[in-house]
Amino acid sequence: MLPVKMCISASAASRIIFQCLRFYCQKPPKKLRICEAVSSSDMGTNVKVQGWVRSVRHQKQNLFLHVNDGSSLQSLQVVASSQLNHRLLTFGSAVEVSGLLVKSPSRRQEVELQANQIHVVGECNPVDFPFKVKERHDLEYIRQFPHLRCRTNTFSSLLRIRSEATTAIQLYFRDKGYVQVHTPVITSNDCEGAGELFQVEPFFSVPAYLVVSGQLHLEVIAGAFPGVFSFGPTFRAENSQSRRHLAEFFMVEAEISFTQSLEDLMKVMEEMFRSTTEHLLAQCPEDVALFHKHVTPGHNVRTQSISTKYQHQNTMITYTEAIDILNRSSQKFAFETDVAAVDLLVPGVGELCGGTLREERLDLLKTRLALAGLDETYRWYLDLRRFGSVPHGGFGMGFERYLQCVLGVDNIRDVIPFPRYSHSCLL
Amino acid sequence: MLPVKMCISASAASRIIFQCLRFYCQKPPKKLRICEAVSSSDMGTNVKVQGWVRSVRHQKQNLFLHVNDGSSLQSLQVVASSQLNHRLLTFGSAVEVSGLLVKSPSRRQEVELQANQIHVVGECNPVDFPFKVKERHDLEYIRQFPHLRCRTNTFSSLLRIRSEATTAIQLYFRDKGYVQVHTPVITSNDCEGAGELFQVEPFFSVPAYLVVSGQLHLEVIAGAFPGVFSFGPTFRAENSQSRRHLAEFFMVEAEISFTQSLEDLMKVMEEMFRSTTEHLLAQCPEDVALFHKHVTPGHNVRTQSISTKYQHQNTMITYTEAIDILNRSSQKFAFETDVAAVDLLVPGVGELCGGTLREERLDLLKTRLALAGLDETYRWYLDLRRFGSVPHGGFGMGFERYLQCVLGVDNIRDVIPFPRYSHSCLL
Repeated sequence: MLPVKMCISASAASRIIFQCLRFYCQKPPKKLRICEAVSSSDMGTNVKVQGWVRSVRHQKQNLFLHVNDGSSLQSLQVVASSQLNHRLLTFGSAVEVSGLLVKSPSRRQEVELQANQIHVVGECNPVDFPFKVKERHDLEYIRQFPHLRCRTNTFSSLLRIRSEATTAIQLYFRDKGYVQVHTPVITSNDCEGAGELFQVEPFFSVPAYLVVSGQLHLEVIAGAFPGVFSFGPTFRAENSQSRRHLAEFFMVEAEISFTQSLEDLMKVMEEMFRSTTEHLLAQCPEDVALFHKHVTPGHNVRTQSISTKYQHQNTMITYTEAIDILNRSSQKFAFETDVAAVDLLVPGVGELCGGTLREERLDLLKTRLALAGLDETYRWYLDLRRFGSVPHGGFGMGFERYLQCVLGVDNIRDVIPFPRYSHSCLL
Repeated sequence: MLPVKMCISASAASRIIFQCLRFYCQKPPKKLRICEAVSSSDMGTNVKVQGWVRSVRHQKQNLFLHVNDGSSLQSLQVVASSQLNHRLLTFGSAVEVSGLLVKSPSRRQEVELQANQIHVVGECNPVDFPFKVKERHDLEYIRQFPHLRCRTNTFSSLLRIRSEATTAIQLYFRDKGYVQVHTPVITSNDCEGAGELFQVEPFFSVPAYLVVSGQLHLEVIAGAFPGVFSFGPTFRAENSQSRRHLAEFFMVEAEISFTQSLEDLMKVMEEMFRSTTEHLLAQCPEDVALFHKHVTPGHNVRTQSISTKYQHQNTMITYTEAIDILNRSSQKFAFETDVAAVDLLVPGVGELCGGTLREERLDLLKTRLALAGLDETYRWYLDLRRFGSVPHGGFGMGFERYLQCVLGVDNIRDVIPFPRYSHSCLL
């Protein structure tokens, strides 16, 4: 207990005792994430936050910091006596700050932290650090530092959006009763995309490749479920430096049993697109806004309009209409035979989804595989048509292209944490 | 409209008209999944279900089917006039059945379907089909048919459990504010596990491998977030035929910033285990019970007891205690130097999780890497310690081993849809 021996009124005394007690007997500070701190209404609480310094400003008596911990785009303003300043307290350094949460006098934020302790956990030499305080570096610049770019606001937002979009896609399918299947990365199927396969060193008894599509594996499992989906890495050994291709990218694939027509697939594609986009706009409004404001100004209008158009279903054209349009254009096109296939095209990105109804006819499949000398290798695939086969179809959506489409990001390398492409496999 | 011209009372007439109307003017049947049909309370509704025949029984006047569509372990009993019987209506065939949902007179089920139409969508020759009606095939037998085993109750349950466990893990981390990171499969890091790496054919400017752990990539991202996690495929080119190893398996990995001690990691491991297991027991009680009843009788007691023990935290032993126990055993062991590491061991499976606090000291890392001649290659890793580094640590959990542990499945090949191991890469 504190010895309080002053001649003061009872109520003033109790107030002083209370404050002293609060100072001396206070509980250890409550550890908060920055997103919790900035939205807290618990003024006067003693808290501790941890994060990285986004700005430092000295005034005569006061020191102002902005600390961000990646829990949201927002940083927490920290106000401290200038006595707490330290030469290691620089942009980019990691800190642990304790103090009282108070209402901020500024209109810029609701809450600020009156620090009584600032501890520099990890220093950061601002001269060597490639990002500079208060500068908005463009995506091309930060792409040069794959191991550090998550320290920028833009890429940190991208990572939160990517994580939330992953959740949204999985929840969409789960709510609709789909089973998530982990299709394999290593496969002995080589029927798709021949030259674009990555081969894996000999280890299995057969040549093995990195998967270009989980379709065949999903077809296996769709033989016992109403709908299945996969969400995982897919590979193309394409020698492309294009802004729309990667050697390793994420793909959402769905396979639906008892389909009647392409409309069944289109409905799922559209619903998934709309539900995921709505989820993102609702759960990450600030992060998405950063892209729509700074990376591609005005893109929010386009994102909204894509969603709305889907709602009215007025963007579908038939194969015949597409051919008409192409024939009327100045370029020449060659047309392949009609198949039960559908593509979802979006502005700026091109093909986002592609789907087909799968060939059901056992005899036809048998003949085709026999002609290719593959009937023994794909006997298992023929078996699927032999034992309780059902009409089914499915589609795949490039996850990075989806993010490009919604955020308006021009280069696919800027929407994946560790891009792999021709001649580049950093980290 | 129907001509109803009979001499009957007004009320009886209206009843008849109503029933006739119902028959002739009825809306198209409502398509239901089996899980919706068996739990429906909408008796008298005209519905359509689609699925695979699990049993067929003929009686003099009636035909009884059990139809399953994978939406749950339960099948729907279908009762039809024996006139609807057909030679193609066999075990394993795919059917579409329309009729009225009615309360079942039997105590075995609440609901049954009085069929007025049965359409065989895909036939199944029961002689060639490897699974036989009403036989419970063991896991070893069904493992021989990787393309068909999802058609058994056991493997269909496994796939639902695996899907739900995936959701549970992701929701656990999301609720705790972790960001999900898609760490790459192809990597140029070769510092871990040397000989056990799968090499990928030359394509990048550097030798590339299939990832053995996403740890280094997660460490990159943990430099800007309170916590990050990944959930995806991982690879080992191990020449093992063991019941606990696969060449391609799923791993959950988490990296936590600002860790103080191993206890921080242990807390997350345990919470994740408990929360995922509780989610599974709550969401898939019938599927889990199938394993605990038929595959490993009595295993439910063990699953419960593991969860409970964690709650009381009485299963932790220190490194020193572990060495004491080993020294007292009859076998001889060699001990390595102590590191800040923790393993989570479970009965029957062994190591489920392994975690460490990461080396923070820049000078030490520099020296070590220089000695190995890797300081240039891993300059990016040193950079992480140079710019706002924070104490951090993480762990990995083998997802298949987790499923083995909870379900009591002896062989790891039985808890993954498409197992890859030494000399085997089917499909």
